[in-house]
Amino acid sequence: MDELDYRFLCELAAQLRVDSVRAAAAAGSGHPTSSMSAAELMTVLLARHLRVDVADPANPANDHLVFSKGHASPLLYAMLKAAGVVTDEELLTFRRRGSRLEGHPTPQVPFVDVATGSLGFGLPVGVGLALTARRLDRLPYHVWVLCGDSELAEGSMWEAFEHAGHEGLNNLTVIIDVNRLGQRGPTRHGWDLGAYAARLGAFGWHTIEIDGHDPGQIDYALADARATRRRPTAIIARTCKGRGVSAVENREGKHGKPLEDAEQALGELGGPRALTVEVTPPDAPATPYRYADGALDLPRYEVGERVATRTAFGEALAALGTARGDVVALDGEVADSTKLEAFAKAHPERFFEFYIAEQQMVAAAIGMAARGWTPYAATFAAFLTRAYDFVRMAAVSRAGICLVGSHGGVSIGEDGPSQMGLEDLAAFRAVHGSTVLYPCDANQTARLVADMAAMEGVRYLRTTRGETPVLYGPDEEFPVGGCKILRTGGQATVVAAGVAVHEALAAADLLAEDGVSVTVIDAYSIKPLDSAELVEMARATGKVVTVEDHWPEGGLGDAVLSALADAPVPVRKLGVSRMPGSATSQEQLEDAGIDRGAIREAVLSLLR
Amino acid sequence: MDELDYRFLCELAAQLRVDSVRAAAAAGSGHPTSSMSAAELMTVLLARHLRVDVADPANPANDHLVFSKGHASPLLYAMLKAAGVVTDEELLTFRRRGSRLEGHPTPQVPFVDVATGSLGFGLPVGVGLALTARRLDRLPYHVWVLCGDSELAEGSMWEAFEHAGHEGLNNLTVIIDVNRLGQRGPTRHGWDLGAYAARLGAFGWHTIEIDGHDPGQIDYALADARATRRRPTAIIARTCKGRGVSAVENREGKHGKPLEDAEQALGELGGPRALTVEVTPPDAPATPYRYADGALDLPRYEVGERVATRTAFGEALAALGTARGDVVALDGEVADSTKLEAFAKAHPERFFEFYIAEQQMVAAAIGMAARGWTPYAATFAAFLTRAYDFVRMAAVSRAGICLVGSHGGVSIGEDGPSQMGLEDLAAFRAVHGSTVLYPCDANQTARLVADMAAMEGVRYLRTTRGETPVLYGPDEEFPVGGCKILRTGGQATVVAAGVAVHEALAAADLLAEDGVSVTVIDAYSIKPLDSAELVEMARATGKVVTVEDHWPEGGLGDAVLSALADAPVPVRKLGVSRMPGSATSQEQLEDAGIDRGAIREAVLSLLR
Repeated sequence: MDELDYRFLCELAAQLRVDSVRAAAAAGSGHPTSSMSAAELMTVLLARHLRVDVADPANPANDHLVFSKGHASPLLYAMLKAAGVVTDEELLTFRRRGSRLEGHPTPQVPFVDVATGSLGFGLPVGVGLALTARRLDRLPYHVWVLCGDSELAEGSMWEAFEHAGHEGLNNLTVIIDVNRLGQRGPTRHGWDLGAYAARLGAFGWHTIEIDGHDPGQIDYALADARATRRRPTAIIARTCKGRGVSAVENREGKHGKPLEDAEQALGELGGPRALTVEVTPPDAPATPYRYADGALDLPRYEVGERVATRTAFGEALAALGTARGDVVALDGEVADSTKLEAFAKAHPERFFEFYIAEQQMVAAAIGMAARGWTPYAATFAAFLTRAYDFVRMAAVSRAGICLVGSHGGVSIGEDGPSQMGLEDLAAFRAVHGSTVLYPCDANQTARLVADMAAMEGVRYLRTTRGETPVLYGPDEEFPVGGCKILRTGGQATVVAAGVAVHEALAAADLLAEDGVSVTVIDAYSIKPLDSAELVEMARATGKVVTVEDHWPEGGLGDAVLSALADAPVPVRKLGVSRMPGSATSQEQLEDAGIDRGAIREAVLSLLR
Repeated sequence: MDELDYRFLCELAAQLRVDSVRAAAAAGSGHPTSSMSAAELMTVLLARHLRVDVADPANPANDHLVFSKGHASPLLYAMLKAAGVVTDEELLTFRRRGSRLEGHPTPQVPFVDVATGSLGFGLPVGVGLALTARRLDRLPYHVWVLCGDSELAEGSMWEAFEHAGHEGLNNLTVIIDVNRLGQRGPTRHGWDLGAYAARLGAFGWHTIEIDGHDPGQIDYALADARATRRRPTAIIARTCKGRGVSAVENREGKHGKPLEDAEQALGELGGPRALTVEVTPPDAPATPYRYADGALDLPRYEVGERVATRTAFGEALAALGTARGDVVALDGEVADSTKLEAFAKAHPERFFEFYIAEQQMVAAAIGMAARGWTPYAATFAAFLTRAYDFVRMAAVSRAGICLVGSHGGVSIGEDGPSQMGLEDLAAFRAVHGSTVLYPCDANQTARLVADMAAMEGVRYLRTTRGETPVLYGPDEEFPVGGCKILRTGGQATVVAAGVAVHEALAAADLLAEDGVSVTVIDAYSIKPLDSAELVEMARATGKVVTVEDHWPEGGLGDAVLSALADAPVPVRKLGVSRMPGSATSQEQLEDAGIDRGAIREAVLSLLR
């Protein structure tokens, strides 16, 4: 780097600071001090190391940059301004209603792959992008992740460090902005760069400790990072929060607010500049690798046969993988239980093992989706709760991912409540734009597994551990948003899904002996629910019982009540009514108050 | 250790294996091979190092043992049998309906502090117990945690390693059963003990690598662990899964199932034994430290004053801390935002900073609760989703914890969706035995913060970022399970909570101008909900509108629909209807369709 370059970089860093301060001042809120600490780091990256086609965010050869410290959004937007992607006018719409320059970045902004702002999320997604580059796209693009030091307290970061280190993802570089100050006060390790280096080194990373305000050191480190083989690199940079403005530099209590005297600050920073950067484009055009598509030959099950829906999921996904080259599978070290192993056997090159690290698994799915792949990630429904924040962030990211939770409900039997998914339907219903599916038989499962690939947003499918009889023929269709009427009777409607459908059918038989005829609805599509059909049936029968292998709150029962809100009829909601222990599957259903006997009793009590 | 001791230990280890095999055989399911790998480790701990009063599980001087690898429950139950706590007859009820010896341990079993079975949960709770010993109980008891090697992939483990290492918790020992095989196959690091030692050493732990089947090495390591100063110790033990039975020893595909030929296995292990262990009691009786109780002098706010409920939470908790010596506070590095810092200032010795590690924060709360303290853990409502699995496990553990989520809803304004709690009400409603509170003003908040201390189970309180007018006088009571009728009108009932109460009141004013009179209910207690009052008001007015700053699914609206299930009237449910961006608080409410105008429109449309 010659002196001219050096001077330009210093000026550009000053501009990024100035624009961060201006954006926050215009908004009246935001995180300028967290932006100022990383100004040189991002300046040198932008001007000298990032390989991006500024005119084409979708260019598959582009590097990727993830702001894991999403609150430094003013810095990101200032970079985009310097690169000519946003205007100064737009920059000053920061945080205003309708602006795409939100308080924390989302993919509505060009070159942003994923929403950040929940700390500890960006790096695991970056690991997903780097895995995608290497194993799926098979392209040499590099993934750069800017992290804060505070967020290294999040366990999800260490899932990511472990995964990337073990995979030797040398196409991934983490730039840690060690500005010493968190939101509330000093971080655990302050400026002890060695503490971070020791940890990351032990996790298999190449580490470089630098002064994060020295363009020369940064330039060396970034070049070294891209050139490093076999290992990911962490650039651990000592920086000052609020750097460049004496009123806030390295001071506590200056997090997350605009500078009190922006004019004075701009003066101290040398005032606005109008520098632009020619970002270097990728070396060459590139075409991402894609697996061939083929015919969809879903498994077919005989009516009456006993097959677990988890088994049908695994077999269907393996078939779907043959039909669709974009389908990939992610496991949390339970593929033998979720039956994802059927896919692993059929398509080993598209199968990813994340060990027991559900957050990294979901984040990687989001990263793969950002690159156009269609990921299916599966673990026990209970353990997807471990990644609930990441599911929430997937929705904010407008990411299209398929999640499959096995071992739904008390019907798993003896393993006990720690292994039972009993809140998953509530949790996934409350995700914006989500789809929630809960099949009751093998053919239905197979069809839904295939159909969910073509949908948008977060799609969740719940499977059952035990075998259940096949109710539907293999050619039956199960539109999302639909339902199936399995019995027609006039005195009440029983709405069920999953394993409870079989109890509902048995209850209908018992009730027939009592001289009571009921309609039985299989509500396999819990969100969206077939409101029109439910309203019609509810009106026709005048009484409704819902039954689900789930806590009574937030699941199928609440969904049905919502559907009937405008056309109310009396509803009796059956869900798991007490904390389960160990017992056989059928005993569990009985103890939970959701078995055939409980359904029968609920119908009779409604009729009394 | 003399030869007699050594022989006894080998025999006892064989008995623990035999009993693990017998228990799983009797149950027809379970995890004998995961128990067998740790038999010597637990034998030597039980016979020579654990200090427990077997006759008194509540003895405060007792050491604590947490099976973080909860699936090794047969081993734990075999230990309890050897110690005389359970009979052989009870041992063989393993996993049967009604047995307290469930598939995974719960606190229904003596000496079990916390339910395990969700991997990565036990160690963070152990950190909480060790912190309690040192900073709260001020007692010398030791905390021993048995971990699997697979679970070291969980990020929550590294939150715990970091916290314990940094705090220098020398009263905590982790015993890592490195049996090389996870559920699906080999772990990431196999028998590379050095990989674990390097990581843990970098995190500030004292590490000892041993042969986990050699009683002598184990004995040395356990003694060294207890004697180590200033640092926690990790005993990294190389073991064989299924050790002692050739059909399963160190073989893949033998996880989580009873041995195929139990008789043959028992023969190979030398058959059943009837050894008993005299567990060494604690050195001396002990009385845990307790802070003095005092008078409750809650903050008082003037009606009409504008105060954020988060501010009232902080001030009320500080006052509650003066009144109740058992109250402690846990922060996720956002105490300045949640306003927990008011407690930190008033009671620094009972304030715990966990940095941005929500899982460790919640787990520590569970550990503190197990020792009789009343913890309040607070972070943004959005970021409590990070710990949702641990909240679920708190319920399985029957733990009494208070969780407070700030920044609920779109009303936070410019920060955008990543910072908005919009699924918390759904998530917490779907926790067994939970209480969900959502106050709308400062006096109500203060009273609920105080009252929730005396309740059971998981208690959740949601606060609002912005200032809202005080509606209630400081002496008003707010019983949990109650509600407040703020306006009485005949044409419809509007049910709201939190920030939406103020919009509902404004809507009532607008509707009055339209000539429409409505009842407005403040449903501050979302679970339990005041069903009786709601039914009465709904019947009286014939129409209901619900409004909440939350996604439409699973929150207040669904709770109201459930309450009205037996006595249905038409309900219009208002919740956040689209993904928010950045905007002012009032703009957000408008864009979400939950402001006064939207409520007015919903009422009018119901009346049309």
